[in-house]
Amino acid sequence: MTNNQSPPSRPGRRGFLKAGGAAVAAGAGLATSGVTHAALTRTHADDLQRQIEPFYGAHQGGVVTPQQSHSYVAAFDLKTDKREEVIALLREWSQAAARMTQGKPAGSLETADDKPAADSADVLGLGASSLTITFGFGPGLFTSRDGKDRYGLASKRPAALVDLPRFNGDQLIAEKTGGDLFVQACANDAQVAFHAVRQLARMGYGAIQMRWGQAGFLSGPKGQTPRNLMGFKDGTNNPSTAKPPLMNQFVWASAADAPWMQGGTYTVVRRIRITLEHWDQMELGFQEQVFGRHKYSGAPIGQKNEFDAVDLKAADKDGNPVIPDNSHVRLSNQANNAGAQILRRSYSYNDGTNFYIERWPPWRQETEYDAGLIFIAHQADPRTGFIPINEKLSKFDVMNQFTTHIGSAIFAVPPGAREGSYVGAGLFEA
Amino acid sequence: MTNNQSPPSRPGRRGFLKAGGAAVAAGAGLATSGVTHAALTRTHADDLQRQIEPFYGAHQGGVVTPQQSHSYVAAFDLKTDKREEVIALLREWSQAAARMTQGKPAGSLETADDKPAADSADVLGLGASSLTITFGFGPGLFTSRDGKDRYGLASKRPAALVDLPRFNGDQLIAEKTGGDLFVQACANDAQVAFHAVRQLARMGYGAIQMRWGQAGFLSGPKGQTPRNLMGFKDGTNNPSTAKPPLMNQFVWASAADAPWMQGGTYTVVRRIRITLEHWDQMELGFQEQVFGRHKYSGAPIGQKNEFDAVDLKAADKDGNPVIPDNSHVRLSNQANNAGAQILRRSYSYNDGTNFYIERWPPWRQETEYDAGLIFIAHQADPRTGFIPINEKLSKFDVMNQFTTHIGSAIFAVPPGAREGSYVGAGLFEA
Repeated sequence: MTNNQSPPSRPGRRGFLKAGGAAVAAGAGLATSGVTHAALTRTHADDLQRQIEPFYGAHQGGVVTPQQSHSYVAAFDLKTDKREEVIALLREWSQAAARMTQGKPAGSLETADDKPAADSADVLGLGASSLTITFGFGPGLFTSRDGKDRYGLASKRPAALVDLPRFNGDQLIAEKTGGDLFVQACANDAQVAFHAVRQLARMGYGAIQMRWGQAGFLSGPKGQTPRNLMGFKDGTNNPSTAKPPLMNQFVWASAADAPWMQGGTYTVVRRIRITLEHWDQMELGFQEQVFGRHKYSGAPIGQKNEFDAVDLKAADKDGNPVIPDNSHVRLSNQANNAGAQILRRSYSYNDGTNFYIERWPPWRQETEYDAGLIFIAHQADPRTGFIPINEKLSKFDVMNQFTTHIGSAIFAVPPGAREGSYVGAGLFEA
Repeated sequence: MTNNQSPPSRPGRRGFLKAGGAAVAAGAGLATSGVTHAALTRTHADDLQRQIEPFYGAHQGGVVTPQQSHSYVAAFDLKTDKREEVIALLREWSQAAARMTQGKPAGSLETADDKPAADSADVLGLGASSLTITFGFGPGLFTSRDGKDRYGLASKRPAALVDLPRFNGDQLIAEKTGGDLFVQACANDAQVAFHAVRQLARMGYGAIQMRWGQAGFLSGPKGQTPRNLMGFKDGTNNPSTAKPPLMNQFVWASAADAPWMQGGTYTVVRRIRITLEHWDQMELGFQEQVFGRHKYSGAPIGQKNEFDAVDLKAADKDGNPVIPDNSHVRLSNQANNAGAQILRRSYSYNDGTNFYIERWPPWRQETEYDAGLIFIAHQADPRTGFIPINEKLSKFDVMNQFTTHIGSAIFAVPPGAREGSYVGAGLFEA
């Protein structure tokens, strides 16, 4: 396809950018005027669009950042064999991410008529909307699928960046699974989150190929634990991001086996389809036994309040456990997993409908929701975090009747970059 | 699947509903206290969740209602052959829609342990979030695909409810096309919109089968025309919903050929996939020629401001039209379509990625965005509205290089219901 019309003169654009660029400049101005996140927390909806999360720092954003309402996560495969091209891309990505997280375009909007613009402009005027952009490295950056050490990084692969085992019940689809590079964009606006990944993907044309991308959302009354599409509160038992010692223990990687990962984390992503039609037909009491919690209050079964302790020893008058043996909350509880905790930061997804063959009697063939959970968990070491917990859940969790793991990926998420540097510099330049 | 565990005693739930139901009650209170939409427009984000749009009235909501930020649209096929079952469903739907648009659950949350709850509870505490629910009737309600008059309604089919013709370039997928019943839910929250359709779908289990469902979103700076994923403002030339004469002329159906449709409208839905990767590589000047508008300002080419008149006669110094002959804005302009106007109320969609075969050289096979536009247009008569306009666009619009129509449907959207009645009563009871 070629553009075979010569463009007529267009007096409007440059004038607009100079005179009318106020909306863009407003967001940029906030970034340099020292307005803090806290000062902006209680403002109007318009101002919510202007909230800015820092890009540079000891840790990357989007891990312990208060969870935004929308996300777009994506994984890319590296096509280039050149180490310097990977470095150049990461450098370009970091610079563009720093701009976009301040509400600025990925690149200049001032473009000659006969050139593609550096930004798709679909979020012009929307502000930063608390955008965070988080980068991660998959196993393929260190060792390609055919065993080659393409970038001279094989010796730097952290022991904690294991290939995930096959779990019981996994129904993984290749084009929703894996990836050499990971980008997670979270923002309080669906278009702002997608826009960020789209610009970054485009910068890599030639060097990378998108492997999968997925939009997500999270709705919750302010200050309360949000509910997932199953109607239950999700995240009650998360370690508190307000407690740095807990984050150091469970979330931030130690330098023990890979010094460049100090201050980073390991991230597991699972695309979990939920049979919502089926779930909605289940008795309320049964749903609560599946979770091990009361649905409306979020309290552990037998308790009154959401944050009441989960008492795994409680028994009813017949001696049966109040919180069932195969319930989600019991199987995933810290006490049953050698004290392990992971920081879940999941989003619901809703990709409309597809034609499916049902997995339960009478095995109808019909249109069903393609909706569920983009499970995202951060941890200091997946070998003591997600993997043993999910080994247990995948075998015993009664919730598995309603969930199918369709996609899966694991990434090393390096620490944040210093201004002027880029995410991953410690890996390539140590 | 059966529930083979007897539920233990659960002291938490009823107490929670009585004591802790304040969040739900708050939304309900607003509905009866006479707080108007205008009074609530400039409030805090928390209050945005509590905004309520009326369900009952002369017109259904979601047509001229200021566009909310999220939507879920769905179509259903009728499986029942019984007229009274259709009426019962529409009655139940209207009552549930009235409740949900006030921020209440679809049905009571007070449920016995051994019964499914009447609501999935995933939006508990989120408030109405300006939810509107709009119902429509497809051709199949009047004449089934095998020509039967299942419900005795064939003689009531409005002449304006035509079967859409095949348009040039259509690549329609059966399971994204058509449908006997239509539900559009729009809200300022993704989960609230989906929740509404999900509850209604479940009420119809047995009598209906979902045909397709689709989530959408719309991001825009407050008070400005929002941009679609192509980065251009979308809706600039819409007839103003603030001008009732324009709405009467172009949007609301007249009673001429179907008295029960007076105050209703005809709605066309098209799922239009956009090749965003390809579009992003196009020169800025070429993109502007495709639309016939400047990208950043939204002004017609050659003009300065978004709302400057589209001057189709303007020519450059060589005598060539300033707004190209095959541009979107020229072909769809009222002046080129016998004065026809339609009210577009579209949403972007983003269903992640799929593996595709490209439609342009070098015909790569790769993962691409499954994203684009859920085009939704309301009009007094599609025979003078969408159909002739799209006949022209589908043949000549240069934008077709970047868009593919995947899904299509047409519905008669009846007028609003009086309180105590239901949407469609005029059709069944006249």
